[in-house]
Amino acid sequence: MKIFLQCLPCFARQAVESAEMSTDDPEMKEKIIRAALRKASEIPFDKSPPHMGKEIHRIIKDLLGDIDPYRDLKNLYNKKALDLYPRMKEIVSSADDPLKTAARLAIAGNIIDFGVSVTNNHFRLMEVIDDTLKRPFAIDQYQEFKLDMRNAKKILYAGDNAGEIVFDRILIEEIPEFKQKVIYAVKGSPVLNDVTIEDARDTGLAEIVKVIENGSDAPGTILEECSDQFLNAYNEADIVIGKGQGNYETLSEFCEKCYYLLKVKCPVLARDLKVGVGDIVLKKQEPFS
Amino acid sequence: MKIFLQCLPCFARQAVESAEMSTDDPEMKEKIIRAALRKASEIPFDKSPPHMGKEIHRIIKDLLGDIDPYRDLKNLYNKKALDLYPRMKEIVSSADDPLKTAARLAIAGNIIDFGVSVTNNHFRLMEVIDDTLKRPFAIDQYQEFKLDMRNAKKILYAGDNAGEIVFDRILIEEIPEFKQKVIYAVKGSPVLNDVTIEDARDTGLAEIVKVIENGSDAPGTILEECSDQFLNAYNEADIVIGKGQGNYETLSEFCEKCYYLLKVKCPVLARDLKVGVGDIVLKKQEPFS
Repeated sequence: MKIFLQCLPCFARQAVESAEMSTDDPEMKEKIIRAALRKASEIPFDKSPPHMGKEIHRIIKDLLGDIDPYRDLKNLYNKKALDLYPRMKEIVSSADDPLKTAARLAIAGNIIDFGVSVTNNHFRLMEVIDDTLKRPFAIDQYQEFKLDMRNAKKILYAGDNAGEIVFDRILIEEIPEFKQKVIYAVKGSPVLNDVTIEDARDTGLAEIVKVIENGSDAPGTILEECSDQFLNAYNEADIVIGKGQGNYETLSEFCEKCYYLLKVKCPVLARDLKVGVGDIVLKKQEPFS
Repeated sequence: MKIFLQCLPCFARQAVESAEMSTDDPEMKEKIIRAALRKASEIPFDKSPPHMGKEIHRIIKDLLGDIDPYRDLKNLYNKKALDLYPRMKEIVSSADDPLKTAARLAIAGNIIDFGVSVTNNHFRLMEVIDDTLKRPFAIDQYQEFKLDMRNAKKILYAGDNAGEIVFDRILIEEIPEFKQKVIYAVKGSPVLNDVTIEDARDTGLAEIVKVIENGSDAPGTILEECSDQFLNAYNEADIVIGKGQGNYETLSEFCEKCYYLLKVKCPVLARDLKVGVGDIVLKKQEPFS
């Protein structure tokens, strides 16, 4: 998905929020935001929105060094999500279709996204879960998904955010032979609240499946910036699961074997997917013409 | 009020909305928005937020010539407000304190502000009015206001937006000897949906009080950019009424004789005034120390 004009206010908001998260120094905040706005004024519109998230993070890195400003929040959300893990396992095990319920829970986890807005800090997690369990899919390709999860030999799961990773684990554990089939990819270095290798270790996911870094610092999966290790796994996979908005935005024009699981959080994406803001989506990539 | 970091996403949104209003040409929209973001990246933080609105408008003027992209919307909102005029007059005349009710209505009119968000297009006007008539003031200096309205010899009323001007008229008509005392100031040229001389004529306000242009193209009252005619009226006035957020933002550090009537539409202003978003305010300028 390309950058639309309507993405630009969101980039400015992301710059302000990231600056606020990264430093208490007002002058430094100002520097970050001014540099981000300059970058936004030049960003090519044939890129996808996560390019801008990456640029903001690089500006912060240039000015403040190799920091991980969202680390404490990521730890907090991992912990909150882990607290809910036993309850989510119960919900799944008592469901008529555990894989489908697990897919819904994985989408519920997609709410935890400071990239979209830090005001989401204040959501009540169980309410989000209950809502997502009841809400009909706006795009529902679950039947194909179920079949492909059974038949695929290798599945690459491109993770999204910290906290959310625990919800991803719930889904992964319902995929037949997940220990053999699934590789989970985290970001190559910290960007926003995106999942890193530390989160995969802290939440126990690294103990149940192979976890690799994608080699990139973008809040999505920009293939040309990913490592050979990631690209090998990507090429060898029969199915790729692109989790969350950032992965959809970066992969939807390139990945022929992708499924996207996400909650639609912005009007630009809603228009692209022809659904509403707040809708939940389990979508298979359409064939490229 | 100075520009805060949190204003910058709002500037970007305003640039996108103004570009969308001004042209159908995608390349031209892009040019406008890129130029606005560049300007936003350089804007001095000791200016007030309406400086940026002015800059966006100047960019559009440079690129597209001397257009008034909000003209049709302004006409529409003038008409909608004029349709309600008889009903508002009835509400005022049957009120216990007609001046206070008229002040509330003037604030209700402050909802009509595309500068804050075009999604406000879709509000239902009578609901806004009913809500504003019932809502307690978060800052209530009406008693002083009432006294000053009676005692002042010359009152300068700095207008805000089209449509809203009809609500201003309702208030003006309750000020004792308004025909002799009140001068209403409109913007010197079109900017956003701000009120211009055309709106004062179309809504009949120009027939009941003297109307002057302020000589500036800012969505507020930036004194150093105002005409001599406006500054004379400003200096001669005993009381200035600054209507709406833009006038508060530009006058609150300079105008010792101001009253501000507004609905609080953004968290930055809410913090400055120590009230909540959505609150209504009738505030007298505190003495400068």
